[in-house]
Amino acid sequence: MAKEINLNADMGESFGAYAIGNDPAMLEVVSSANIACGFHAGDPLVMRETVGLAFQNGVSVGAHPGFPDLQGFGRRKMTMSAKEVEAITIVQIGALQAVAAAAGGKVTHVKPHGALNNIAAVDDVLAEAIARAIKAVDPGLIFLAPACSAMARASEKLGLKTAIEIFADRAYAPDGQLVTRGQPGAMIHHPEEALAHVLKMVREQALFPLAGGRIDTPVDSVCVHGDGPEAEATARLVKEGLAKEGYAVKTLPAMAKFA
Amino acid sequence: MAKEINLNADMGESFGAYAIGNDPAMLEVVSSANIACGFHAGDPLVMRETVGLAFQNGVSVGAHPGFPDLQGFGRRKMTMSAKEVEAITIVQIGALQAVAAAAGGKVTHVKPHGALNNIAAVDDVLAEAIARAIKAVDPGLIFLAPACSAMARASEKLGLKTAIEIFADRAYAPDGQLVTRGQPGAMIHHPEEALAHVLKMVREQALFPLAGGRIDTPVDSVCVHGDGPEAEATARLVKEGLAKEGYAVKTLPAMAKFA
Amino acid sequence: MAKEINLNADMGESFGAYAIGNDPAMLEVVSSANIACGFHAGDPLVMRETVGLAFQNGVSVGAHPGFPDLQGFGRRKMTMSAKEVEAITIVQIGALQAVAAAAGGKVTHVKPHGALNNIAAVDDVLAEAIARAIKAVDPGLIFLAPACSAMARASEKLGLKTAIEIFADRAYAPDGQLVTRGQPGAMIHHPEEALAHVLKMVREQALFPLAGGRIDTPVDSVCVHGDGPEAEATARLVKEGLAKEGYAVKTLPAMAKFA
Amino acid sequence: MAKEINLNADMGESFGAYAIGNDPAMLEVVSSANIACGFHAGDPLVMRETVGLAFQNGVSVGAHPGFPDLQGFGRRKMTMSAKEVEAITIVQIGALQAVAAAAGGKVTHVKPHGALNNIAAVDDVLAEAIARAIKAVDPGLIFLAPACSAMARASEKLGLKTAIEIFADRAYAPDGQLVTRGQPGAMIHHPEEALAHVLKMVREQALFPLAGGRIDTPVDSVCVHGDGPEAEATARLVKEGLAKEGYAVKTLPAMAKFA
Repeated sequence: MAKEINLNADMGESFGAYAIGNDPAMLEVVSSANIACGFHAGDPLVMRETVGLAFQNGVSVGAHPGFPDLQGFGRRKMTMSAKEVEAITIVQIGALQAVAAAAGGKVTHVKPHGALNNIAAVDDVLAEAIARAIKAVDPGLIFLAPACSAMARASEKLGLKTAIEIFADRAYAPDGQLVTRGQPGAMIHHPEEALAHVLKMVREQALFPLAGGRIDTPVDSVCVHGDGPEAEATARLVKEGLAKEGYAVKTLPAMAKFA
Repeated sequence: MAKEINLNADMGESFGAYAIGNDPAMLEVVSSANIACGFHAGDPLVMRETVGLAFQNGVSVGAHPGFPDLQGFGRRKMTMSAKEVEAITIVQIGALQAVAAAAGGKVTHVKPHGALNNIAAVDDVLAEAIARAIKAVDPGLIFLAPACSAMARASEKLGLKTAIEIFADRAYAPDGQLVTRGQPGAMIHHPEEALAHVLKMVREQALFPLAGGRIDTPVDSVCVHGDGPEAEATARLVKEGLAKEGYAVKTLPAMAKFA
Repeated sequence: MAKEINLNADMGESFGAYAIGNDPAMLEVVSSANIACGFHAGDPLVMRETVGLAFQNGVSVGAHPGFPDLQGFGRRKMTMSAKEVEAITIVQIGALQAVAAAAGGKVTHVKPHGALNNIAAVDDVLAEAIARAIKAVDPGLIFLAPACSAMARASEKLGLKTAIEIFADRAYAPDGQLVTRGQPGAMIHHPEEALAHVLKMVREQALFPLAGGRIDTPVDSVCVHGDGPEAEATARLVKEGLAKEGYAVKTLPAMAKFA
Repeated sequence: MAKEINLNADMGESFGAYAIGNDPAMLEVVSSANIACGFHAGDPLVMRETVGLAFQNGVSVGAHPGFPDLQGFGRRKMTMSAKEVEAITIVQIGALQAVAAAAGGKVTHVKPHGALNNIAAVDDVLAEAIARAIKAVDPGLIFLAPACSAMARASEKLGLKTAIEIFADRAYAPDGQLVTRGQPGAMIHHPEEALAHVLKMVREQALFPLAGGRIDTPVDSVCVHGDGPEAEATARLVKEGLAKEGYAVKTLPAMAKFA
């Protein structure tokens, strides 16, 4: 079987007069884009522009639902019931689906954003709320979930197509969660180190916690970041490194496991 | 051919802790509901509850897109380009489509709200932007547009299914537009008068301006209002009056012209 | 020394077309009003109307700052740094101060709302952020804080005028915090019971936890609620009961301890 | 009498994770800053940071109220009653006043933003609503209004301190209004031309419409823009050019006419 991998990044985070990120450049690198849906970032015009540009680049499109908190960019935790989380996920997926339909394409995956992603990574109740939302809207959607997360478990439990992602620039804790930002060693700053980190996880299909040990996990997708000039360089290096190792960089829906 | 008519009302306008309208009662009266999509009113939980209740009552569901102005309830005019109007319409339709899909059903029509509806009733450029948005998302959607409006023309021009609505409680100007609120005779307050007004327009398939004259137009749907206790009584009276005249009250997608 | 007490309630929580509460009736009962400042509820027109009505009724006016979460009515916890909490408190106080100035009066107290109040009741860092905000804007402002709360401590620590409030309809835990809603006995539903509960605390200047025991505390103000028809009746009963016992119901700035 | 002039620019327009403008650099150039108040741009943290930085630079601080339209950056016209305009102006001034008080200083002027400024430049009713708001909050505030505008008239009519501003980079129409963007000659792109344009108007205390003629007007302040690298250079050039001509660049409250 051919070796394949997905590269994803967050996109479409500009809002009105406010610009963030370098989407045109990143869309030349990644194969799947997680697009903000107007709750924590993005607006209807930005959504249309980003989806259009993604399709032009042959990049598959995912909804990137977040908390309704533009000022906090979806990075502030908000206490929400499972029912609310399910509802905000449904609505955000739908908003992007219509934009994709208007551009002649489809939303093919969902990946939660920021604080919602962090909470649902370790909270089974909210993780299942998100999985239920995805399934209810379109059971063919791929749930792009962090390795070892409650979302990965919820996705499997509900029978959704599940893509497991790792982070190119983040170290792992012994339980497979990300080492918290601010802790020593949490961030991997050097592009070459990030590449080595990624290659090892992809080859071995396992996480290697900073503190030692190994956790087996499928690794379907690598998340790269688009903000900062260094970030784009890292993303390109990771992509080229994976290609040199013989990995075909695929969109999520084009991967063999989802075909 | 059997005589048939549609009855529509705006719904799902509550927001968080804020309640507006009497949706459960109105959903027993109307056959189609225009549901707010979170821009001028409504929120994800309210959208889900309203759509669920509509489907339980056999009421067809339409998106009710408005300006992004919760404080103004979408009633304040905002200067927007055609591109922005198109984008906000797409996103709002999509949000409701996902909610409908999650409830096992479909959005079958679109009717703009408040100031957006008022502007697009007389502005061909914005009317076509809305029609393009509808067509781009789902060309099978019915555009529910006021009689004699730019939206009715735009809908026909783009080849969309077009349902023409009249208002039970509003008088018409010589050009077929509504007499502006505040003008003498603009509002029809007595339920019996509203019924007579409706019956004449439906029977004759024409508007009868307050100042005299007659404007021929298809009349597919009657818009009734749900706020105020009197409003509900008027809606029931209109429904019964139409039934007595032999009209079958149908959901929009069930009408013969859209079958 | 004359016996005196303050009665406070939340007000000005309507928003645009959305109405909540019965402010005109409640403003005839209470002596101090906590007025929403547009972040979790209220809008500029509502703020002006509520402040004007309060002044007409001789009711003193306080800012009621909350989280920026209209959909959640400020009841959802949001993770915020002390710096953010300080900033949102400053801005909300200022907004109401200008409204009060335009009505020829002054804001004389501050009481946080909902989830912000709940968090700052037990979090010393955020409680001090709020106290710093109050002191920085106007050191003459009275901080209206729950009995036994971190806010009460922070207010004293920073040398602010501190008014301690109790709740007419809530039972207390052994540590002086409110028994969590949903726990047995948390809410006091009968007006007569609420009155007895209030009279005992005011007379004894102490809390009497549901589980037994006594916690001495100043009791300067009684918080009554304005939503629900029963709530208004309870508020009136509490006011009359206090008057019968010889308590003068005063605005916060008119109380002897703040003179 | 010494020759003096004020230089003003819009500031504090960042929001959450979104950055706009180059405030630290512009605060070294201008003498008065118009600071966004959270309705069309800015947030509580940005307001505090900008006000603090302005005071550190000896720059006087003004409220820059706009329409409640973050997505449109306050540049989209919204239909609002005079009562609403008055209320949103009051609230925004107050929010900034509290921030200024917390930083140990004062708001000393008010200048409306974007679409609100454009509408109130030619609408006497809304211009007076803004003037009333300013007077009601603090009659000592300076109203910074465009030359020949309805706001300049309203400010004088209500007896407010009135500072008249001209734009460094905009051409004037025969009625003293700005030539609409997009019209030929509307924008002055070359810094040297902008300087010459400014010097002529300041020296002569008059506008010189593009089409010819002269309109006498006080000229107290020059508005420069802070976005774009060229803008900062223009601002510096204008400042130096005015200094060379013997003008002392003063904060608004330090000008002789307001002393």
